[in-house]
Amino acid sequence: MSDRHCAAERFVLTGEQLTVGGVPLPLLVERVGGTPFYAYDRRLIEARVAELRAALPRAMKLHYSIKANPMPALVGFMARQVDGCDVASGAEMRVALDAGMDPREISFAGPGKSEVELAQAVAAGVLLHVESAREVRLLGRIAQRLHLPARVAVRVNPNYELKSSRLKTGGGPKQFGIDSELVPDVLAEIRREGLAFEGFHLFAGAQNLRAAEICEAQSKALELAVHLAVHAPSPVKMLNLGGGFGIPCFAGEQTLDLGAIGDHLHDVAASAAAQLPHAELVIELGRYLVGEAGVYVARVIDKKVSRGEVFLVTDGGLHHHLAASGIGQLIRRNHPIEIYPRRSTAAREVASVVGLLCTPLDLLGHQLELPAAEPGDLVVVFQSGAYGYSASPTALLSHPPPLEVLV
Amino acid sequence: MSDRHCAAERFVLTGEQLTVGGVPLPLLVERVGGTPFYAYDRRLIEARVAELRAALPRAMKLHYSIKANPMPALVGFMARQVDGCDVASGAEMRVALDAGMDPREISFAGPGKSEVELAQAVAAGVLLHVESAREVRLLGRIAQRLHLPARVAVRVNPNYELKSSRLKTGGGPKQFGIDSELVPDVLAEIRREGLAFEGFHLFAGAQNLRAAEICEAQSKALELAVHLAVHAPSPVKMLNLGGGFGIPCFAGEQTLDLGAIGDHLHDVAASAAAQLPHAELVIELGRYLVGEAGVYVARVIDKKVSRGEVFLVTDGGLHHHLAASGIGQLIRRNHPIEIYPRRSTAAREVASVVGLLCTPLDLLGHQLELPAAEPGDLVVVFQSGAYGYSASPTALLSHPPPLEVLV
Repeated sequence: MSDRHCAAERFVLTGEQLTVGGVPLPLLVERVGGTPFYAYDRRLIEARVAELRAALPRAMKLHYSIKANPMPALVGFMARQVDGCDVASGAEMRVALDAGMDPREISFAGPGKSEVELAQAVAAGVLLHVESAREVRLLGRIAQRLHLPARVAVRVNPNYELKSSRLKTGGGPKQFGIDSELVPDVLAEIRREGLAFEGFHLFAGAQNLRAAEICEAQSKALELAVHLAVHAPSPVKMLNLGGGFGIPCFAGEQTLDLGAIGDHLHDVAASAAAQLPHAELVIELGRYLVGEAGVYVARVIDKKVSRGEVFLVTDGGLHHHLAASGIGQLIRRNHPIEIYPRRSTAAREVASVVGLLCTPLDLLGHQLELPAAEPGDLVVVFQSGAYGYSASPTALLSHPPPLEVLV
Repeated sequence: MSDRHCAAERFVLTGEQLTVGGVPLPLLVERVGGTPFYAYDRRLIEARVAELRAALPRAMKLHYSIKANPMPALVGFMARQVDGCDVASGAEMRVALDAGMDPREISFAGPGKSEVELAQAVAAGVLLHVESAREVRLLGRIAQRLHLPARVAVRVNPNYELKSSRLKTGGGPKQFGIDSELVPDVLAEIRREGLAFEGFHLFAGAQNLRAAEICEAQSKALELAVHLAVHAPSPVKMLNLGGGFGIPCFAGEQTLDLGAIGDHLHDVAASAAAQLPHAELVIELGRYLVGEAGVYVARVIDKKVSRGEVFLVTDGGLHHHLAASGIGQLIRRNHPIEIYPRRSTAAREVASVVGLLCTPLDLLGHQLELPAAEPGDLVVVFQSGAYGYSASPTALLSHPPPLEVLV
């Protein structure tokens, strides 16, 4: 039995070295020019997309949620892998368009879009997920001014929750979307303002590992969309079921049962074909597409034994990888971490992997059992392809930001 | 009795408007060119320095810890307020030197200094707080190569803790400094390598609001330094007692009793004069100097009522102000927040202040009782002068970073 986390096992080992995108780690370090850096593996992303294509109904569209990882080269690569994308800011929209994404397949969501961003989206022909009556009124004015259609879908705050999601974006009172019971009024407003209605976006939560709950939310989303479609100014052409597919970051977490979700989505698609015959179904994923394909690589620069505890001091830290530091978790848990070269004969020892910042919060791994490491060794943090670099406070203590490479 | 947080009361009100550095907020918004932004008030920093000067012994040096807020204009201002500064990276050292700080009064601490950074500090004539035997060896080589003295103080991991500090940087096993029981060996190594020994740095924790605990730690620091001085290659010229002075961020927290600390430091200074007659004492503060002088200003762009709860959607968010979002706290508590204009006649209502990001974590204030606000109003988050901008994940969702202004 392997002692490795399932995330580490996706990467090939060549002797004692990890390979990323087929390149052994020491060579990759040379190629990047140093540590620390993030590396994303194209083959693993392709493999994940292939798994999804095999599981999901053929006609279902697969979208990439750029906020998970907005590195332009990666978005360019994703543009050839998926059918469209979701953006959350004017800048993300620019990255998507630069990457060659078809504006018809770009959607723009967010609870606080500015007037400038709304106009950018109309000018580009991007689909706006409207989240308030304010946006509907502004879009009416913008469409008139630009003599262009304002393509809109209504982001619905459903009357149900995605139960065990770490991050609930729907159900109960929320700043996201429009409460389902208020949607008929907003649809009437969309008709009055002459906006180009296309459909609904129902997204109840993120980072969920329980297939049954995701399936239940998808069924409820379809049911709610069918119910709301009665009030729509035109037939529903698009139904975005959101995502919420989680990846296991911590020891003991199960991998998501994609097969079960795929089977269920075949039923949902059949049901949608009968009830919303003009609607294309969209699944929108971020973390699930790229999270497991990325690693963060730092180098051990010092090994300190303080009062019996071992500290591996690296040249990285929480300013590069806030998620690994555990900030934001109620109970701190370790990301999967390995040391390279992976010396099979090395004695094992308990060590904490820390960054170079002057704060006790700068902890990448707390009291891990690892092969004994030495200065010069490389530390690899897995499950780092999503919400890593872009979600970290890179300016803290003014150290250089990490590098990024797509391999 | 005022309903305002003590932090808000430091700022002058002119009618319904807050003033920052004497400038009414609406005018400041125009001058900055828009929201969101951080504003730091020079007068409040001066007042804080004056309070400290009045409380501390005359001969005690006051240092600014740049990591609290590295904005170059602010560091330039601080250079004329304080006697020196502490830096935590090569880039912070550059900012300090650019600001005109005397290199003799700059110290450089950090558990993972790179060889390049160590050489930068030696070349600049900055004092290095050495934190491991590795640094001593490297500095020996660097001093030889550059034909320059390597000025060092030993950062000691003491054998006591600063009890209720939120962030403990000393006591028990730590990646910071050198365990006090190992310091004699390191001092011998410093002598062998021919480094220019200057003293000790003892810093047990940060953000503490209990004067008695800070005083106790200072007494123990002196005691430990006296004990360690016996092993030093030359008389102790500098003893950095650290800081740890906290500011009250949350409702119900007491303000630090600076008078009690000042009185105690007079005793410490007298005792030090007798036991370490050549030693200059240094107090090093970051958050305490600038934290209360800063505000984060965002604008309400939408007001949504979802299932009975009010959400004020602003053009800011946790990507600008991670601390206000409560990420990193075990139990989320609100920073002091006010709405401007401050309409005395407005009905009060419970509202949550959220940012524009697509995540439920983007919460600047949770269910605050506030005067009823409207789109266009300004939201001010107090206690934002330290670990605000530089400690936030500004790239998240690719929105523009906040602006910063020193008023």
